[in-house]
Amino acid sequence: MEIRVVKNILEANEVIASQNRKLFAEKGVYVANLMGSPGAGKTTLLEKTIEHIKGRMRIGVIEGDIATSRDAERIAAHAIHAVQINTGGACHLDGNMVRGGLEGFDLDQIDLLIVENVGNLVCPAEFMIGEHNKVMIISVTEGDDKPEKYPLMFQVSSVLLLNKIDLLPYLDFDMKRFQGEALKVNPKLKIMAISCKTGEGLDNWFRWIEERTSKKGS
Amino acid sequence: MEIRVVKNILEANEVIASQNRKLFAEKGVYVANLMGSPGAGKTTLLEKTIEHIKGRMRIGVIEGDIATSRDAERIAAHAIHAVQINTGGACHLDGNMVRGGLEGFDLDQIDLLIVENVGNLVCPAEFMIGEHNKVMIISVTEGDDKPEKYPLMFQVSSVLLLNKIDLLPYLDFDMKRFQGEALKVNPKLKIMAISCKTGEGLDNWFRWIEERTSKKGS
Repeated sequence: MEIRVVKNILEANEVIASQNRKLFAEKGVYVANLMGSPGAGKTTLLEKTIEHIKGRMRIGVIEGDIATSRDAERIAAHAIHAVQINTGGACHLDGNMVRGGLEGFDLDQIDLLIVENVGNLVCPAEFMIGEHNKVMIISVTEGDDKPEKYPLMFQVSSVLLLNKIDLLPYLDFDMKRFQGEALKVNPKLKIMAISCKTGEGLDNWFRWIEERTSKKGS
Repeated sequence: MEIRVVKNILEANEVIASQNRKLFAEKGVYVANLMGSPGAGKTTLLEKTIEHIKGRMRIGVIEGDIATSRDAERIAAHAIHAVQINTGGACHLDGNMVRGGLEGFDLDQIDLLIVENVGNLVCPAEFMIGEHNKVMIISVTEGDDKPEKYPLMFQVSSVLLLNKIDLLPYLDFDMKRFQGEALKVNPKLKIMAISCKTGEGLDNWFRWIEERTSKKGS
């Protein structure tokens, strides 16, 4: 019975996510859903991304957190409009929460909307929010054995950002194993090794998100 | 309505967790529920703990994972009986899953049962499994701002193991801020800074779990 309840919740969510998706298409907004564990580097990646592309594209950010508005404050410090959604305990954003968050924006004034999900490598992968692409970020400190242990997140994502590669010299992280497993779980996954600290590899990511936004957002 | 469904699920879980708790008391087994994000170091901590105390106490392990039996295999390599629970997508263990896992043990032959939960800093905190104590592990690479952003896990845990302190020289981690926030969220939290890699600080943890087991398990 619990399974049926969960199925109903997912189906109801899908309806609202479709409505969001339609709205984004009408308004010409490209939407990325950024997911990963606590501390994987989601907000730092967002800050770097904003600094790089904010002169060329109009960006909006939705910050999903269980509590506090810290991440939205970090984003707002970059002169970008950020709306905070506090889930009050819930482990993911869903279509309805994002729809509520959209009321804080004039979508005609935005090309790119990035939604930072709650820090969690599991639940956010189950809930569509109307996004064009799911982007996951994981840090090398989380270990090279994660793709097969947490497969859904890897399966539903278009891009995998492997962060904190500046720490590789101090870790036992087998890059070949990690990449092999990730591609076994999702052969279409685009893997980019990055360091938000040193900037290494970020150009690939900037290019990817700018290309997607140009196609969708105009 | 979704909220009422969730409340019913939590109440139903509480009933089963109480039954588990009663069984553990009858059998004189001390039970710890080990929780933390993917890659925080749960399985490595377990391996170190087993190696240290297996001569003096009889240990059993339940491994909760979404998929794969890798962690149970790692534990079994230490000549300890480990039962794998695959949640098949679910983001946490609950009382009923653990009850099923208990069928794999002769509880009369165990003093200490450690349950390694699914890697997730959010959902496992909501579900009691009948444990005596919840123990959380978080690594310094996850950032010093997590207690107030993910408060429930910090609130329900008795012990916080702050792992990977060997990496501190390479990170911007403010130990004072982290400890201050953690204690603000839960003033009773026992914080132990450790490195499973170098062994630093692990003696405190070994002492704590041995003391708890001696009191409950005999």
